[in-house]
Amino acid sequence: MAARRIDGRRLWDSLMALASIGATAKGGVCRLALTELDRQARDLVVRWASEAGMTVTIDKIGNVFMRRRGRNDSLPAVMTGSHIDTQPTGGKFDGNYGVLAGIEVVRTLNDLGIETEAPIEVAFWTNEEGSRFVPVMMGSGVFARAFTLAHAYAAADVEGKTVQGELERIGYIGTEEPGAHPVGAYFETHIEQGPVLEDHGKTIGVVTGVLGIRWYDCTVVGMEAHAGPTPMALRKDALQVATRLMQEVVSCARRHGPHGRGTVGMVQVHPNSRNVIPGRVKFSIDLRNASDALCEAMDADIRGTAARLAAESGLAIEIVPVSAYPAQPFHPDCIAAVAAAATALGYSQMPVVSGAGHDAVYLARLAPAGMIFIPCKDGISHNEIEDAQPDHVTAGCNVLMHAMLEMAGVVS
Amino acid sequence: MAARRIDGRRLWDSLMALASIGATAKGGVCRLALTELDRQARDLVVRWASEAGMTVTIDKIGNVFMRRRGRNDSLPAVMTGSHIDTQPTGGKFDGNYGVLAGIEVVRTLNDLGIETEAPIEVAFWTNEEGSRFVPVMMGSGVFARAFTLAHAYAAADVEGKTVQGELERIGYIGTEEPGAHPVGAYFETHIEQGPVLEDHGKTIGVVTGVLGIRWYDCTVVGMEAHAGPTPMALRKDALQVATRLMQEVVSCARRHGPHGRGTVGMVQVHPNSRNVIPGRVKFSIDLRNASDALCEAMDADIRGTAARLAAESGLAIEIVPVSAYPAQPFHPDCIAAVAAAATALGYSQMPVVSGAGHDAVYLARLAPAGMIFIPCKDGISHNEIEDAQPDHVTAGCNVLMHAMLEMAGVVS
Repeated sequence: MAARRIDGRRLWDSLMALASIGATAKGGVCRLALTELDRQARDLVVRWASEAGMTVTIDKIGNVFMRRRGRNDSLPAVMTGSHIDTQPTGGKFDGNYGVLAGIEVVRTLNDLGIETEAPIEVAFWTNEEGSRFVPVMMGSGVFARAFTLAHAYAAADVEGKTVQGELERIGYIGTEEPGAHPVGAYFETHIEQGPVLEDHGKTIGVVTGVLGIRWYDCTVVGMEAHAGPTPMALRKDALQVATRLMQEVVSCARRHGPHGRGTVGMVQVHPNSRNVIPGRVKFSIDLRNASDALCEAMDADIRGTAARLAAESGLAIEIVPVSAYPAQPFHPDCIAAVAAAATALGYSQMPVVSGAGHDAVYLARLAPAGMIFIPCKDGISHNEIEDAQPDHVTAGCNVLMHAMLEMAGVVS
Repeated sequence: MAARRIDGRRLWDSLMALASIGATAKGGVCRLALTELDRQARDLVVRWASEAGMTVTIDKIGNVFMRRRGRNDSLPAVMTGSHIDTQPTGGKFDGNYGVLAGIEVVRTLNDLGIETEAPIEVAFWTNEEGSRFVPVMMGSGVFARAFTLAHAYAAADVEGKTVQGELERIGYIGTEEPGAHPVGAYFETHIEQGPVLEDHGKTIGVVTGVLGIRWYDCTVVGMEAHAGPTPMALRKDALQVATRLMQEVVSCARRHGPHGRGTVGMVQVHPNSRNVIPGRVKFSIDLRNASDALCEAMDADIRGTAARLAAESGLAIEIVPVSAYPAQPFHPDCIAAVAAAATALGYSQMPVVSGAGHDAVYLARLAPAGMIFIPCKDGISHNEIEDAQPDHVTAGCNVLMHAMLEMAGVVS
């Protein structure tokens, strides 16, 4: 069993060929969802799938399913996939790796003459990045009925072009009802987009789940006054109160470890003048953790600290929720299959969580799901310098193949 | 002696008449330096001075000196003054009060038939506000040789119009060499522009000096990374380090009380995105205190904390001085004259410092100087809603008259 290996060179060559569509001067890829470049990339992947003997169906939101028959073809498919749209200054691996790893698995099964009990499918989901159209993870979101097809169709880019219109224009508006496609299990291979595997020197991240996310806008209102004539005791300095709450965002995440995350990414100071005590400070809060209960506990901590700071300072502090995603643990069977595959193949591994969203989050609502992470250089992603080592790319794909075979069953 | 009182109604009427030149809809004044409106205001004040029997000289930077003879007219004048230019959204009292209080003193001396030993002069200094041309306190700065006439002449507004050209255009470029004018003592009456007198319920602030100012730009450089996939322990969050230093700016000012002031007024976060850990934060630091030694001690504290935070976090912290003004204590004789006048007149009083710069700061380099503060509503200045009570306006002017008579000597 462990002797079955994918062709790492073929996979790498496919990645580089796909990355040439929308290639940027700095070595990245700019291929926004539903553009002409996206169409070219879709056509290439579909051609590869056809060449590998797969059949192709497209649903109404443009998700593409490429299928290799199983011996018992009425079983729900063991599916893998990801996305091939990129950020405006994206890299070669984000999303594309997960799709082409699936294609490579099928090519290898063909080469080795392996038949599976359940069918194998490789999917690419429309507009995962959300750079051109919101919401993000659009195709998998419609598929999982997180929001309606009509909502997605109506989404428009800055020029007013809609998702529906652009799907029609590039010829990827299918006939299948989104979500009608049965899924037996779902795996997604992805670069980590963080620094943990590299920091620990591990090849495979066995992803146990995706962090829940809470976004807020916080506003502290004090009183503008001249920096010179106003003694410290008579100030209502909005920034000084805001910075204490910003500190708490980080402290709170550390207290609720190991997966707690707290970030203030955006700050706006009014009037933002060198010699004026700030009268109003608005800032974003991003809280994440591995369970909804932990997210809730962090929410309570932040609100408690804000209430205490407001009482102490006499300044008004308002915290407004902006959006929230529940934590999504992956299925024990899928987690176990990934871990067992890595062990059988002799790769170093560790359990990790995903701090970012992926299509697998929505698929996990429909079927047992799991993810496989490989390291990316310096943890950098959503950047043209995003990079991954060929050995790691190969290893992740081998793990994917073994985990899928475990779930699909090999006809002996 | 204490029975000599100015005419508060006449002073108030003059203030309101001057405020009508450049009056704004919200009750303030917009009369930028060396504009047509400034010329109209200058002409009005000069006319009032002439009507009060004063002689007028103008120096090359447009400072105007209005003189009432003394019995011994060769003595250096006991001078008072301020400015009549305003902020774009300025109030009726800032500067204007100090000039018109001087005019009212002369009118009162005329009414009461009082002759002084030394001559009395009332000055208004060009471009104190610095809203249209930098540097601020331009006229008094050239007069005190803080910078050259050529430097001031070359200053241009956003349209490229220079101070020299605008002085010529409005007819206020004089022939006297700036600084050639002898000054025996200088007083300046001003609204406090802060909340201290109002907070203490006092009518007269006996100003003991002007705080020294240190301005810096501070930059903290970390590493941008995604808020989701990056665990707390692997972050280089520039904002979290910056906010600790921002806290220290305030703590440091409190430690170096009672006159220590520390303000972060301006903050710029990069890339300023909700789900990206800030990679770079730039912010301003404004430190003030009553002596240069205390300013120096605060500087050392901030730099020490920055060095400690840099060592602890591994992030680079750069602190660049932007500008500095030395602390300027006022002359004991002038401070005593103001305090004695307030006592003799029966006004409540307290010693205060000025946290903002005034023309008196430069004059104090040339002659014994002092200032008289009166409360302003809610400590608000540089704002169209700037306000002062008629009783306080009258009180400050009475104190000015008695202090000037003390220094000039009354011919009995």
